[in-house]
Amino acid sequence: MTRYFTEENSTEAVNARMGESADPRLVEVMTCLVKHLHAFAKEIHLTQEEWDFGIDFLTRTGQICSAERQEFILLSDVLGFSMLVDAINNRRPTGATENTVLGPFHVDNPPVRKMGENICLDGKGESCLFEGRVLDLGGNPVNDARVDVWSDNADGFYDVQQLGIQPKWNNRGLFVTGEDGRYAFVGIKPVSYPIPDDGPVGKMLGKLHRHPYRPAHMHYLVTAPGYQKLVTHIFVRDDPYLESDAVFGVKKSLIASFELVKVGETQWHSPFDFVLTPISA
Amino acid sequence: MTRYFTEENSTEAVNARMGESADPRLVEVMTCLVKHLHAFAKEIHLTQEEWDFGIDFLTRTGQICSAERQEFILLSDVLGFSMLVDAINNRRPTGATENTVLGPFHVDNPPVRKMGENICLDGKGESCLFEGRVLDLGGNPVNDARVDVWSDNADGFYDVQQLGIQPKWNNRGLFVTGEDGRYAFVGIKPVSYPIPDDGPVGKMLGKLHRHPYRPAHMHYLVTAPGYQKLVTHIFVRDDPYLESDAVFGVKKSLIASFELVKVGETQWHSPFDFVLTPISA
Ligand SMILES: [Fe+2]
Ligand SMILES: [Fe+2]
Repeated sequence: MTRYFTEENSTEAVNARMGESADPRLVEVMTCLVKHLHAFAKEIHLTQEEWDFGIDFLTRTGQICSAERQEFILLSDVLGFSMLVDAINNRRPTGATENTVLGPFHVDNPPVRKMGENICLDGKGESCLFEGRVLDLGGNPVNDARVDVWSDNADGFYDVQQLGIQPKWNNRGLFVTGEDGRYAFVGIKPVSYPIPDDGPVGKMLGKLHRHPYRPAHMHYLVTAPGYQKLVTHIFVRDDPYLESDAVFGVKKSLIASFELVKVGETQWHSPFDFVLTPISA
Repeated sequence: MTRYFTEENSTEAVNARMGESADPRLVEVMTCLVKHLHAFAKEIHLTQEEWDFGIDFLTRTGQICSAERQEFILLSDVLGFSMLVDAINNRRPTGATENTVLGPFHVDNPPVRKMGENICLDGKGESCLFEGRVLDLGGNPVNDARVDVWSDNADGFYDVQQLGIQPKWNNRGLFVTGEDGRYAFVGIKPVSYPIPDDGPVGKMLGKLHRHPYRPAHMHYLVTAPGYQKLVTHIFVRDDPYLESDAVFGVKKSLIASFELVKVGETQWHSPFDFVLTPISA
């Protein structure tokens, strides 16, 4: 019987209070959360001063959030929690392209571009031809796949971070495959950039002696009828931050080849095939 | 080697990034937090929609905080986390009075009252004589103990919640013991009250089918040279919420006798002795 709270029975005392007719999944999640939160405090012998600091940290994190800034997502990201939730919910069969985090810079309804078109509108950066195929698990081309791509510009900013400075839809576009499953577009070789580090989360990274950089990457959101949505990046193979991505987004299978080719105006070439997983898998 | 993040190695991948020359205690706390947060997500198979909800919940909790309101403390309270941290940091020897949470309504530097004085200034409520002794573990009286007391008024509000409505320092006072260790004052028999439940935390309680009430209690903060600070309440024995305190503050040893006595103007009598723990214990 857990009538009163003690240090020993703390988890049971709290969880005994969950309403019997409350939503079962909510009760399941909260019961599990209480168990792990209490285990954390007990294992680390959390002091009153550390608790005070934690309350203040969470408060500052909430108060800096705005329409343009989501510091709690950033917190989740730098603790590997976002990637973990993504991994748990997107287990893929062998051979299928792996997911990684969507990130905060995706914009819905990008302009549809012609295959091979250049999405870099500000003229900055080193040009790169991205091309490859969208395939199923059997290696067959996927027709009518929508390949939504976006990257930062040569200064390390997405267009939405520099409204009025960068052209609208700079380094973004949507490409639709035909029966051969091929996609191709010209963009820039992306550059590494820091996540916003002037808030509570950035200060925390600093205290942990962690840098705020993400290795250079091109974002992809690939959808096709009958297939699971693929949210991923490809990473530039020679980036110095590949093994220390601030948000843990790198997977080995997503590191792509970038070759210097100097053909016409295109300087770099990055081939990559995406393999979709059927919804039924 | 944990170069890249996977679902299996997620905790190790994140914790491998802790700076080797960062503050050791910070690294210890964050490493433990990451371990338990990841274990939570894995055990419960947290969905993307639940993660979205969690981010939004934390954001709303942070944004409602103000100089007058601390919703994260409330969240910690209703999850039993505040009581757990209090318990971990205030383990007491057998016979010593137990701690419970300070709560948000303590005010520093209350007026010193004469022994036996009435602290109820608004004339509301059922009068009660509180009296007893401050003792050491050997049962000897403690001289010069400062007994700081506060309670809600008969409407269930602390004076600081009703500035301009209640008299200043209503139901508050500081009493200093003499050589006999005795304290005595007249207050009201406290009444149960709800914690603020119009914010995100209150909504969560509602969804869990939990009520927001705290059982009636008188707060005590007892200090004396050479002894550990005692932060506690005594609870009214016949309160209907004793076994379902919204913040889990009740300990069996803190439930006090309240007898209806009808002597003079004082209607109730609540005797309680406080036993302090030496700092060296
Ligand atoms: Fe990005
Ligand atoms: Fe209280």
